[in-house]
Amino acid sequence: MRTVNVNASKNYDVIIGENILNLLPQKIRELFGNAKVMAVTDSNVFALHYDKIKKELDETGIESDVFVFPAGEKSKSPEVLFDLLETLAEKHFSKSDVLLAFGGGVTGDLTGLAASLFLRGVHIVQMPTTLLSAVDSSVGGKTAVNLKAGKNLAGVFNQPELVLCDTKLLDTLSDEIFADGMAEVIKYGVLADENLFDKVKNGNVKNDIEEIIARCVEIKRDIVSVDEFDKGKRQLLNFGHTLAHAIEAQSNFEISHGTAVAMGMVKAAEISYKNKLTSSDFSEEIEAACRKNNLETLCPYSTDILAKFASSDKKISGKSISFIVPERIGKCVGVKLGVEEFVKMLGEN
Amino acid sequence: MRTVNVNASKNYDVIIGENILNLLPQKIRELFGNAKVMAVTDSNVFALHYDKIKKELDETGIESDVFVFPAGEKSKSPEVLFDLLETLAEKHFSKSDVLLAFGGGVTGDLTGLAASLFLRGVHIVQMPTTLLSAVDSSVGGKTAVNLKAGKNLAGVFNQPELVLCDTKLLDTLSDEIFADGMAEVIKYGVLADENLFDKVKNGNVKNDIEEIIARCVEIKRDIVSVDEFDKGKRQLLNFGHTLAHAIEAQSNFEISHGTAVAMGMVKAAEISYKNKLTSSDFSEEIEAACRKNNLETLCPYSTDILAKFASSDKKISGKSISFIVPERIGKCVGVKLGVEEFVKMLGEN
Repeated sequence: MRTVNVNASKNYDVIIGENILNLLPQKIRELFGNAKVMAVTDSNVFALHYDKIKKELDETGIESDVFVFPAGEKSKSPEVLFDLLETLAEKHFSKSDVLLAFGGGVTGDLTGLAASLFLRGVHIVQMPTTLLSAVDSSVGGKTAVNLKAGKNLAGVFNQPELVLCDTKLLDTLSDEIFADGMAEVIKYGVLADENLFDKVKNGNVKNDIEEIIARCVEIKRDIVSVDEFDKGKRQLLNFGHTLAHAIEAQSNFEISHGTAVAMGMVKAAEISYKNKLTSSDFSEEIEAACRKNNLETLCPYSTDILAKFASSDKKISGKSISFIVPERIGKCVGVKLGVEEFVKMLGEN
Repeated sequence: MRTVNVNASKNYDVIIGENILNLLPQKIRELFGNAKVMAVTDSNVFALHYDKIKKELDETGIESDVFVFPAGEKSKSPEVLFDLLETLAEKHFSKSDVLLAFGGGVTGDLTGLAASLFLRGVHIVQMPTTLLSAVDSSVGGKTAVNLKAGKNLAGVFNQPELVLCDTKLLDTLSDEIFADGMAEVIKYGVLADENLFDKVKNGNVKNDIEEIIARCVEIKRDIVSVDEFDKGKRQLLNFGHTLAHAIEAQSNFEISHGTAVAMGMVKAAEISYKNKLTSSDFSEEIEAACRKNNLETLCPYSTDILAKFASSDKKISGKSISFIVPERIGKCVGVKLGVEEFVKMLGEN
């Protein structure tokens, strides 16, 4: 078991280990006294794992309830968000109670936002059940729902008060969903840690998964604690992501986030080298690491098409973007580009 | 013209004066550079006053647009909120742009929340057009929409970056709507300033309205700056409000917020004295001041009925409440009561 402490606008622990669900009740008592718990989870995780946490809570006499929503990105919507908020009100949850996000990125983002909104703020614990949410979305406080106009366009920053990651829960993930998370792990390696990259570049990571998750969380922690509100350094975490967003959108979200990030990182490395934003071409190295971890890296779209998507991206249109460039494996930098300049650069590749 | 500086999680000016709309463009340039402006306003204020700010913005070459929603409390809803957010996305507003809440409490609360959510935060300027929003809701950062289960149950704290209050706009308010704001003014007097109470207790306040608004904002500022997130001292601002919420709800919102606050303050003073929470009965003095300012004070419901409502109040159920008690005109204190104890006390009066 490993603990990473995050010191942002809230100070909280990220606890990572195998078979640590039994820590949940004692931590809740310790942090929130006699609070009631509303677990929020999707239909898949509910069926697979909810009984385990329910048992732990019941045995300790912690009053709890559960809100289950249909699995899938479509549930990251204003409708499900307000359904959850109405449920909390109807069930007389109060400011001193706790929301427990038990699931992947959709669950974490939705629940984190609900916890921020309900009565202008209730307690929030994140329990990631996917590798992607363990290394990325459960830590750092970005919450959101999607708008019709685009993903994650309505949200707030709301740091959790505890993250409890039981690596045992990852055993039920399909290879594909596991690989999705590995895209972000590889990203952290390229961003900040050559040793991490070397450790994961040949695949076969499962025996070291606790250590790997903890290292990713540390890297994210180090970035978030200097730029919680995404004004500068935090944009490093977007390595590969500007293109990934375009790839996901162009595929009508048939291509998963992790696969899109893998494709986006390879393309970003390629473009960075071709446009002399970096002195070496790291695209092959990144591509090899992704493939060894079961990630498709061949983007089916021309950069021309991606350029069109990027230019209509609701988050970047009209202003400049910080394009993240690998200086070497283990260090990236942000290069400020005008959106037109960026789109033109893409179009030419 | 008077300026009150508020130093909370954001530092901002509240500028109050007659015919000061011309300050809007220069302040926007000064604070936000070349930002685009989305004015948010209801159908009433749009018809009465929007042309005035549009003219100011156009003349200075500031790009702007307007989102108009149907006047009334019903618009303080998730639906209108997300309609606004989708509109911002469709019109390519970015993180560096500004929302301008131009209206009363509904407009301010809705727009403040939207500004917090859109892209996890865009700039927000409040321009109150009612006395109630000038002295209360435009300052201090509480934002919300209503749930089916109750008013203001979904929101965040989001301080504005500028409040611009043109007292000239108050001229178009009906006597009833003006009186609504006076209930909060009287509240500030009872809470914190006997001189303010004396100034307003005989009515005829319009000639001094700039000074009165500024004094109310100062009192609110002093409270909010020590307890922005409503953990303690800020609850003083709830004097009369726990009962007012029950009165509003019991009337199915036929009784206005200001009238309910007037009734609530009188009842709270009465109950406080009867239950020996304070040594004197201030209810008559408060009642007289309310009446002189065109506020009905005779609550049509028994405290027994209010007790039932209070006990099902989504914001207080199951825990204790801080009941605000006048120690004298110019000073209130919070008395911690168990909800059951509070309900019992009400029921007995």
